Amino acid sequence: MFLTRTEYDRGVNTFSPEGRLFQVEYAIEAIKLGSTAIGLKTKEGVVLAVEKRITSPLLEPSSVEKIMEIDAHIGCAMSGLIADARTLVEHARVETQNHRFSYGEPMSVESTTQALCDLALRFGEGDEESMSRPFGVSLLIAGHDENGPSLYYTDPSGTFWQCNGKAIGSGSEGADSSLQEQYNKDLTLKEAETIALSILKQVMEEKVTPNNVDIAKVAPSYHLYTPAEVEAVISRL
Amino acid sequence: MFLTRTEYDRGVNTFSPEGRLFQVEYAIEAIKLGSTAIGLKTKEGVVLAVEKRITSPLLEPSSVEKIMEIDAHIGCAMSGLIADARTLVEHARVETQNHRFSYGEPMSVESTTQALCDLALRFGEGDEESMSRPFGVSLLIAGHDENGPSLYYTDPSGTFWQCNGKAIGSGSEGADSSLQEQYNKDLTLKEAETIALSILKQVMEEKVTPNNVDIAKVAPSYHLYTPAEVEAVISRL
Amino acid sequence: MFLTRTEYDRGVNTFSPEGRLFQVEYAIEAIKLGSTAIGLKTKEGVVLAVEKRITSPLLEPSSVEKIMEIDAHIGCAMSGLIADARTLVEHARVETQNHRFSYGEPMSVESTTQALCDLALRFGEGDEESMSRPFGVSLLIAGHDENGPSLYYTDPSGTFWQCNGKAIGSGSEGADSSLQEQYNKDLTLKEAETIALSILKQVMEEKVTPNNVDIAKVAPSYHLYTPAEVEAVISRL
Amino acid sequence: MFLTRTEYDRGVNTFSPEGRLFQVEYAIEAIKLGSTAIGLKTKEGVVLAVEKRITSPLLEPSSVEKIMEIDAHIGCAMSGLIADARTLVEHARVETQNHRFSYGEPMSVESTTQALCDLALRFGEGDEESMSRPFGVSLLIAGHDENGPSLYYTDPSGTFWQCNGKAIGSGSEGADSSLQEQYNKDLTLKEAETIALSILKQVMEEKVTPNNVDIAKVAPSYHLYTPAEVEAVISRL
Amino acid sequence: MFLTRTEYDRGVNTFSPEGRLFQVEYAIEAIKLGSTAIGLKTKEGVVLAVEKRITSPLLEPSSVEKIMEIDAHIGCAMSGLIADARTLVEHARVETQNHRFSYGEPMSVESTTQALCDLALRFGEGDEESMSRPFGVSLLIAGHDENGPSLYYTDPSGTFWQCNGKAIGSGSEGADSSLQEQYNKDLTLKEAETIALSILKQVMEEKVTPNNVDIAKVAPSYHLYTPAEVEAVISRL
Amino acid sequence: MFLTRTEYDRGVNTFSPEGRLFQVEYAIEAIKLGSTAIGLKTKEGVVLAVEKRITSPLLEPSSVEKIMEIDAHIGCAMSGLIADARTLVEHARVETQNHRFSYGEPMSVESTTQALCDLALRFGEGDEESMSRPFGVSLLIAGHDENGPSLYYTDPSGTFWQCNGKAIGSGSEGADSSLQEQYNKDLTLKEAETIALSILKQVMEEKVTPNNVDIAKVAPSYHLYTPAEVEAVISRL
Amino acid sequence: MFLTRTEYDRGVNTFSPEGRLFQVEYAIEAIKLGSTAIGLKTKEGVVLAVEKRITSPLLEPSSVEKIMEIDAHIGCAMSGLIADARTLVEHARVETQNHRFSYGEPMSVESTTQALCDLALRFGEGDEESMSRPFGVSLLIAGHDENGPSLYYTDPSGTFWQCNGKAIGSGSEGADSSLQEQYNKDLTLKEAETIALSILKQVMEEKVTPNNVDIAKVAPSYHLYTPAEVEAVISRL
Repeated sequence: MFLTRTEYDRGVNTFSPEGRLFQVEYAIEAIKLGSTAIGLKTKEGVVLAVEKRITSPLLEPSSVEKIMEIDAHIGCAMSGLIADARTLVEHARVETQNHRFSYGEPMSVESTTQALCDLALRFGEGDEESMSRPFGVSLLIAGHDENGPSLYYTDPSGTFWQCNGKAIGSGSEGADSSLQEQYNKDLTLKEAETIALSILKQVMEEKVTPNNVDIAKVAPSYHLYTPAEVEAVISRL
Repeated sequence: MFLTRTEYDRGVNTFSPEGRLFQVEYAIEAIKLGSTAIGLKTKEGVVLAVEKRITSPLLEPSSVEKIMEIDAHIGCAMSGLIADARTLVEHARVETQNHRFSYGEPMSVESTTQALCDLALRFGEGDEESMSRPFGVSLLIAGHDENGPSLYYTDPSGTFWQCNGKAIGSGSEGADSSLQEQYNKDLTLKEAETIALSILKQVMEEKVTPNNVDIAKVAPSYHLYTPAEVEAVISRL
Repeated sequence: MFLTRTEYDRGVNTFSPEGRLFQVEYAIEAIKLGSTAIGLKTKEGVVLAVEKRITSPLLEPSSVEKIMEIDAHIGCAMSGLIADARTLVEHARVETQNHRFSYGEPMSVESTTQALCDLALRFGEGDEESMSRPFGVSLLIAGHDENGPSLYYTDPSGTFWQCNGKAIGSGSEGADSSLQEQYNKDLTLKEAETIALSILKQVMEEKVTPNNVDIAKVAPSYHLYTPAEVEAVISRL
Repeated sequence: MFLTRTEYDRGVNTFSPEGRLFQVEYAIEAIKLGSTAIGLKTKEGVVLAVEKRITSPLLEPSSVEKIMEIDAHIGCAMSGLIADARTLVEHARVETQNHRFSYGEPMSVESTTQALCDLALRFGEGDEESMSRPFGVSLLIAGHDENGPSLYYTDPSGTFWQCNGKAIGSGSEGADSSLQEQYNKDLTLKEAETIALSILKQVMEEKVTPNNVDIAKVAPSYHLYTPAEVEAVISRL
Repeated sequence: MFLTRTEYDRGVNTFSPEGRLFQVEYAIEAIKLGSTAIGLKTKEGVVLAVEKRITSPLLEPSSVEKIMEIDAHIGCAMSGLIADARTLVEHARVETQNHRFSYGEPMSVESTTQALCDLALRFGEGDEESMSRPFGVSLLIAGHDENGPSLYYTDPSGTFWQCNGKAIGSGSEGADSSLQEQYNKDLTLKEAETIALSILKQVMEEKVTPNNVDIAKVAPSYHLYTPAEVEAVISRL
Repeated sequence: MFLTRTEYDRGVNTFSPEGRLFQVEYAIEAIKLGSTAIGLKTKEGVVLAVEKRITSPLLEPSSVEKIMEIDAHIGCAMSGLIADARTLVEHARVETQNHRFSYGEPMSVESTTQALCDLALRFGEGDEESMSRPFGVSLLIAGHDENGPSLYYTDPSGTFWQCNGKAIGSGSEGADSSLQEQYNKDLTLKEAETIALSILKQVMEEKVTPNNVDIAKVAPSYHLYTPAEVEAVISRL
Repeated sequence: MFLTRTEYDRGVNTFSPEGRLFQVEYAIEAIKLGSTAIGLKTKEGVVLAVEKRITSPLLEPSSVEKIMEIDAHIGCAMSGLIADARTLVEHARVETQNHRFSYGEPMSVESTTQALCDLALRFGEGDEESMSRPFGVSLLIAGHDENGPSLYYTDPSGTFWQCNGKAIGSGSEGADSSLQEQYNKDLTLKEAETIALSILKQVMEEKVTPNNVDIAKVAPSYHLYTPAEVEAVISRL
């Protein structure tokens, strides 16, 4: 089985006899090697929580950015190749700024997500901005626009889904089950913070500290929690 | 047999000794992995019905779009790689808008279908808009123009056919047989809704709910059914 | 034998040690998989007749186009990959329209054929309009110009021949023999209709109906037969 | 021996360890598969004679063109891939017309031949007009300019030679020997016609008729023989 | 294991089935072959110390540059392919100069690092300035801006981290452990010089002399130590 | 040995592990298959003599050009692929004419040789005028400028040397030895003619006639000997 | 070991699993096949001495150039592929002339060396001036600028070092040892001439004559020794 598979999986944009695109599937594997990230939507706003792998005590925790602001009303958490994510986020920042400039209003969260996925889809096409391989990253995009809060999930194939809660990265399977058990649509933002972090705690091998997790909310504006704010959530667990 | 085949099937645009283009055939396989979609034409209009695979209860069903509007008088259902379909639909939307702008009238359903297939045919040619591989998606294009209602079916080779009823995706074989048995040219739109959904029900592994199917009609305008309208059709089964 | 052959046949534009271009030969194989088409020239005009494979009763027969108009005085029948044929016909339509516009007269049938073959020959050259592989289609081009009626036959190598009668596609061998037996230069157009359809009937596995064959004539203008006109020819068999 | 050869012969422009360019040698093989053509120079002018393979009685013999006019004072006979020859002849026609337009005089036969060979040499170079493989055709170029009549022979490597008599194609070996035996520099044009056709007759498997051979002369203008003129030569054999 | 790995590791931008990019990992190996470099941050500024491999007594030690100035407030130490590093440093120099020219103020250390990594990330993309392979070099970027002193570490994947201390090159593993043991945030710059050089001494196979090490500080301006200044630090060990 | 060699010799511009460029070495082999050419310098001027392989008595000897004029004061003899040589000579003719036009004086022989070699060196670089493989030809360039007579020898690597006498082609080894024995710097041009032709005679398999050798001199102008002049030299042997 | 190595060494710009770039290492091998060259710096200036391999007594020794002038104050000796060196030297000549023209002063020796190495580094990048493979040549660059005399050594990876003495080419190992033994910083230029030539003599297989060595100095201007001056140095050995 594996031998015949190797015939197809190196062409970045070639179908296998079963109709599969292996390079995209392998990029999805890259994400399973990444750190865990969790998104959870409430009526009050969206919470993002990520694990940061601090490999050395001399590393500056704040420089390990796994949650980034896209625009004042949109943020995203990521898992996979961080340098790839940065390219996507940079692209989205330009798109949202252009939108504000052209139309005098913020870009909707869905349009922003679609712009990101359009770039991700066109890998291997030789465009100026696109990559010659799939982007090896998944994003959880949290935003707030005229439709209220929303949470999107994207994968390397350029597909996206809207959801109420989602986990990505190495601990995503267990975390997704826990999310489904604990989610209900009447959660407060504060409850969502606690749920997200407690689930993250389960899948992490280390003790949770303000150094090795990041939390952010979009409610309705993007805000990355300070160490003290993270500490406060930890204390509630 | 399989060994000699592998000599030809990775070149996206290379004939095998038997005169076959394997990459196109493999893209067609990609569609057989997709969810089932059904189109049915009546004198009153065309009905489209699709299965939506909701892999998690936290997923927002409305964000799994398998039926999309192209223009006020044209809609399409899809099976295969959704990101590829989005590129085709986006292309068709621009074409139909340009047509309205240039000629002051809606584009005919056949011309719209042909524009989609021209783009699909040119994979591997290095054009700006074309892909470096075949589009891994089939479309059922429902429309209504001066010739009345019409239903087209496209495949990854850039070929299209007009038909009265057609199923695509993983359950297409059984669904096609059922369609041929139950089709007659005097069906009402309401009967077509019931037939389409009952056939979809047979090939789905889950219970049919407003969450996991979508229904749309073009009669003569495109309309995506609300959950309540879907529920109403379900109740008639 | 086959093993050494495989060394050469994937390069679209590479000679084998025997001086052969395998990709062109394989494209010719693609045509042998196609439905049968027949052309027959008389002093009164040219008749084209094609088999249409209607794979489902729900398929609209008129949407399976195997005979197309190029200009008012030229039509063509095709066998092989229909999407490829459409590209060639589209190219020829532009050429003949440009000629009318520039010179105020219809383009000659031979010049039109040569324009088609020039495009077909340049596969693999990276031109804007050319393909990266040979066109997998053969055409029977029927026309009428100042030299009277004429019938041309093209193959994927970009070569063309003028002839009095010719069959292409899966049933071409038997059909060609029958044509040679029954052809004489004093045939009337009506006799030619009957001969063409009776030969088509021999190579088809189904009963001939107005649904599964198309007939056209150029005498001196292109005319695609209505179902009733086809029925009339069938009744004469 | 053959195995090591295969290492080099697919790169269109790669030397083998013995300093050979196999793709050019294979293109030369393509010509050995072609029909036989003969050229013979006399003081009065040059005679070209070619075999035409009429594969079907329904084929129009005049549409099988193996002798073509380049300019009023130059014609050529060909063997190998006819579509390739057409590209070369078309190029030469443009060159000779440009020369007439720019200098007000016909282009010399040698310059015309050199222009053809310059194009043939540059295969694989990615130029606009050049091919990605060697041209699979040999030409016998007959002309008449201020130096009197001349006959040139070109091969796929872009090399050319001037000669008094030359045969190309599948029967060239035997025909060349016969030419050397029968040639003398005092031949009349009429004797040359007879010699060329009698040698062609020896290497053809069929009876010679006005349908399956073409004869042309440049003396001093290009003239393609009518069937009656060909018949007259045949009757002299 | 290794055999299947070879299927993926030559494509510079291809994922392996486990989601890995081998060419980047191999470039990281190139750095492990390089000489050791150490960076250490204090409140007073940042110290960089590198080993220089002087392979011949006739070599001019000052021409073996492993620490380079980027701007007056930024310097960097490197390990791996020095010619690659020079390209990155040259790019950063242009960026920082442009920034000064456009905004009238020095570029921040983080922005400078990000500009370097953006170039590093785009290998294999065919851009004008980018490489067709990953840059085989790691940098320790020391700087001082409105946020005070900072130290960044970049790797060939285009990822960067901020840290308080970091070692790269062949002796990095041992050196990193020693750094973690000896680091505390209240170090003076003078203590940092001593620690960096004493750790470098442990991993070098030769006696430390002003000829085979270089030391630089950014406090707040970049300064490369003279041989006498290096000698002074050596004497303190 | 040969097997590992094959790993490197097809990449036109790839080093083998021993630091060799095989495609250049194979092009040099192409020259060893060519006919022999000899150049000999005297104080009075330079003599070039070449063997012409006349494969058929019907071939026009004067059309087998192995010695060509570059400018009035420069000529060259060649061995290897004649079509390649023609490209180089054509390039040199343009360069020398441009030089005359721009500076009002003839181009020096060394500059002309260097211009030829610059073109030869850049094979595989995708330039407009350069080839995608090495030029398979060696040249003996004879000239006369303000430094007196000179003789240059070029090979496919784009390297050139000045020499007093040199043989290239299939008989070059024996001919070079004979040249070294018989050369002295006080030879007259007449003696050089006799020596060059007598050495050529030794390495040819046929009797020397004005038909199968060409002789030219640059003393100080280029002159290709007439058959009578060649006959005169032959008679002195 | 060798087998796995072959997986990586043909891609001109691909890392092996150990982080090595084999094509650069193989280009370095090309230099080990070259003739020996020696550079030696004194306070008075720099001496370059090279072996010239005169393969035939008919070769003009002065046309075997292994030492070339770059500008009035810079010269270089080379070992490896001479045609590659010529491209680099030509590039450096243009750079130094541009510098003189733009700034009215000679370019520094280090900047000239860096310009050469920037070109060498960018092989395989598809730039206009760069090569598709590494340059197979090492240079010893001798110069004199406002910092006094200097000697640089470059290799095919685009790296350069400043040194007091250096040997390159087939005899470099032995020559480097001898240089280290005999070098001291108080050498006069005359002593350096003698040392360089005596070391060259040891590694040459022939007797040293003015024909088979070249000597040059930059003190402070570039001067290539005449045969008489070389003879004078030889006589001092």
